[in-house]
Amino acid sequence: SQTFLSNMSAQAILVYGGAGALGSACITFFKEKGWKVISVDLVANELADTNVVLSVTTSWNEQSRQVLEGVSSFIGNDKLSGVISVAGGWAGGNAAAEDLIASADLMWKQSVWTSVISGQVAAAHLAPDGVLCLTGARPALGPTPGMIGYGMAKAAVHQLVKSLAGAGSGISQDATVTAILPITLDTPQNRKYMPNADHTTWTPLTVVAEYFLEWITSPKDKRPKSGSFVALVTENSQTKLVAHE
Amino acid sequence: SQTFLSNMSAQAILVYGGAGALGSACITFFKEKGWKVISVDLVANELADTNVVLSVTTSWNEQSRQVLEGVSSFIGNDKLSGVISVAGGWAGGNAAAEDLIASADLMWKQSVWTSVISGQVAAAHLAPDGVLCLTGARPALGPTPGMIGYGMAKAAVHQLVKSLAGAGSGISQDATVTAILPITLDTPQNRKYMPNADHTTWTPLTVVAEYFLEWITSPKDKRPKSGSFVALVTENSQTKLVAHE
Repeated sequence: SQTFLSNMSAQAILVYGGAGALGSACITFFKEKGWKVISVDLVANELADTNVVLSVTTSWNEQSRQVLEGVSSFIGNDKLSGVISVAGGWAGGNAAAEDLIASADLMWKQSVWTSVISGQVAAAHLAPDGVLCLTGARPALGPTPGMIGYGMAKAAVHQLVKSLAGAGSGISQDATVTAILPITLDTPQNRKYMPNADHTTWTPLTVVAEYFLEWITSPKDKRPKSGSFVALVTENSQTKLVAHE
Repeated sequence: SQTFLSNMSAQAILVYGGAGALGSACITFFKEKGWKVISVDLVANELADTNVVLSVTTSWNEQSRQVLEGVSSFIGNDKLSGVISVAGGWAGGNAAAEDLIASADLMWKQSVWTSVISGQVAAAHLAPDGVLCLTGARPALGPTPGMIGYGMAKAAVHQLVKSLAGAGSGISQDATVTAILPITLDTPQNRKYMPNADHTTWTPLTVVAEYFLEWITSPKDKRPKSGSFVALVTENSQTKLVAHE
């Protein structure tokens, strides 16, 4: 670990969900720019400099321990410039749905376990002026009666962003804590299942990665406001940020 | 179950957390008024007409099944006028706290498991014009950097209230879904640990029970707006409601 950032111009990020569509795109993008990357996911991303590979059957506490130990053993006392969590999932279901509990439990694990562990990584290893970016959901800014479990999990992530940006959270007040609110991402899976949709309203994955790089390498006043969320709104193949507080 | 509401003037409520300080006060109050009461908790409330006694070690899905079966076997096709969840707990801890995961997990189970199961009971058994009231927290309307897990769980409960009030939630649009936001309740435990506090700013438990009765027996336009929250603000031993949307 002593030589991890021996090239002092190299910067490092952690991508939670680094084997998924958006996570992979981020890792590919940051590697092309010469960054060191730690991936956390259920499977390894071979482009990453190191991987923390978790099992879906292990407890929240155990996953937390594995991630914190993995990061610590890899970077030692160096700091991460960014911690990005793009892990998550989606499930519908209202209060009368047979599988409400199962879907709410899954949403909690996929979105909240990952986000909280990312917050722990940031508290322990993020540079004082670094960026922690989680993944929220614009629908959860309002009622979500047809997707109860998803809405609760994302509302919890939004609360986490607000809390981690606050004084005394354990994360430096010079850091930026935010969340992206994706609308529809232009992933292979979405292309497969929605072949006839208007793809000019979908957000390309590389565009998201570019925003992450821009935020991480900018001073705080050029970033999203800490404690706020930014929707990624794509129209006519152009993506703009819409702030939500 | 055929004779449960054989006296057709009797109305019935469910109190989730019926063995706790506030839950017990509610059950005592409603029993004095001649109501039928179902209590759900980890121990029985002997004043209740029936109890669903859960084990802290059983899964969310199993607790849900036990509660739904217990309610169904007791009331059959009759309807509940109110479902009140006053279960919950409190734990502090920021992102650097050693026990963050343990406390966030506990908060989720104590507040969210109970609230979601209450929502399932309401979807299956609440009268179309009934009241579902959960327990939120005023601090979780803003950042909670020193109590990360508590804030996430309560933000999820707030989201649940908004969602369950929405069209398509599985609960009648003629029902009212709300949450109380208690400040400090005048419980024996709070008296014990804060003997020198100003008790004239604490909310008496019977006052909360009186509000529940008032809401349940009032037409919808005299109740808190469905999907909103009401803080219980007590000053000079007088309690007033402050609406939060």
